[in-house]
Amino acid sequence: MKNAAYHISFIGAGNVAWHLAPALENVGHFVNEVYTPDGKSAKKLVGNLYNAKIKESLDFSDSPSQIFILAVPDDAIQSIAQEIKLPEQSLMVHTSGSKGLDAMEYSSAAATGVFYPLQTFSKSKKLDFERIPFLLESENKEALKILNILAKSLSKNIKIVSTAQRKQMHLAAVFACNFTNHMMSISENIMKNAQLDFSLLHPLVLETIEKALKHSPKSVQTGPAKRGDLETLDKHMEMLQSDENVQEIYRLISQNILDNQ
Amino acid sequence: MKNAAYHISFIGAGNVAWHLAPALENVGHFVNEVYTPDGKSAKKLVGNLYNAKIKESLDFSDSPSQIFILAVPDDAIQSIAQEIKLPEQSLMVHTSGSKGLDAMEYSSAAATGVFYPLQTFSKSKKLDFERIPFLLESENKEALKILNILAKSLSKNIKIVSTAQRKQMHLAAVFACNFTNHMMSISENIMKNAQLDFSLLHPLVLETIEKALKHSPKSVQTGPAKRGDLETLDKHMEMLQSDENVQEIYRLISQNILDNQ
Repeated sequence: MKNAAYHISFIGAGNVAWHLAPALENVGHFVNEVYTPDGKSAKKLVGNLYNAKIKESLDFSDSPSQIFILAVPDDAIQSIAQEIKLPEQSLMVHTSGSKGLDAMEYSSAAATGVFYPLQTFSKSKKLDFERIPFLLESENKEALKILNILAKSLSKNIKIVSTAQRKQMHLAAVFACNFTNHMMSISENIMKNAQLDFSLLHPLVLETIEKALKHSPKSVQTGPAKRGDLETLDKHMEMLQSDENVQEIYRLISQNILDNQ
Repeated sequence: MKNAAYHISFIGAGNVAWHLAPALENVGHFVNEVYTPDGKSAKKLVGNLYNAKIKESLDFSDSPSQIFILAVPDDAIQSIAQEIKLPEQSLMVHTSGSKGLDAMEYSSAAATGVFYPLQTFSKSKKLDFERIPFLLESENKEALKILNILAKSLSKNIKIVSTAQRKQMHLAAVFACNFTNHMMSISENIMKNAQLDFSLLHPLVLETIEKALKHSPKSVQTGPAKRGDLETLDKHMEMLQSDENVQEIYRLISQNILDNQ
């Protein structure tokens, strides 16, 4: 424990809470309550925690907690923030990468903030929080200080970013993660159609990613578009003619690589 | 050394030859000659080899080698294959992922084949050949046997694939590697414009790739398009309006993810 121990309640028991709540306990904080609408996933999460109780309503006015973490789907933040009843002097944060502070503006919290672990969570996979960046935001200086202490107790990588920056980062993450994943998905399809296993490409993918992260993706680009090899580009376009959408994706990305030399 | 030792000559001293020639020597084969048009890079490579000599012309008719490896740019394969003079009973292979056997059809080789290490090579980075897939092809059974022995002495991952399959795999590799890299390039730009360091996204990228390779990219897709979150898609489109090309890439890939649920 590097600093003060906080009393925390969780609203939501999805992938983020599943990892974050036990991690916070492990470094000495107290998770007192977990609320979910159906109660079921709250029960599961509480089973993994030391002393947390299931909370059956959004009336937390008698809660012993100081910090309330909304680890809920983006679309649910606003309505829960309006409905929840909080004790005096409480700090409420959400954990979303794409929602602003304004999603919580009509709440009874003394202060609001964002406590966003920049990582993809799945229940089955343990994660090492130390390396996960925590992006913090609050208009309240005291609240930001608390969030900083809380984040520091988990991670070495903490950054205060504005809502505008966080939204840009979320967009950047869509390209760097969702879209890279989809490129691999298309690749896997092409391999399947050629009776080849996608795993043949694994060493090449790993080397590509390693290079991109070590240097800068732009500086290590290779391939026919980068080389301006129009003959290969034409051949590939021809090979893709059975799927117009993928063909158009190929054309556009190749053009963008050509244009950004 | 798992098997016979071969006598080999290299035509070309670029990234592939730079790694492949010493690796072949290390497992007991003999690299006798290296040819490059300017001689310069041949000199450098020969400096890293035991007994190889610089060859100053494409007249190899007196060469002691049995196997001739064309590790040259795709576009140069055909003309070199026509010009090169080989001893009798020689096997000539190229190392290209995208060229067929037909690129070497007008050659004096007794047999031709493809000896394609499926990896991206840069001179500065050492690679472990053991895990690199070698894709082999030849219409000559005896030649295929030799290539198989040669590949097995370097790698545990060997596959005989047709020209058609190799071309599909090359296309698949463009998506899985060049295009994933470009997605990260676009991401890095967005981060820069928001005064954020791309390294903040590194843990997320690594986790994404790890998941995609462990399972299947399609099965682990996340993000706004996967969720059908049209509101976020609209917002992202708006945020990208200063770059029409990237905006169109965003739209097309998101649509393709939506269409392929």
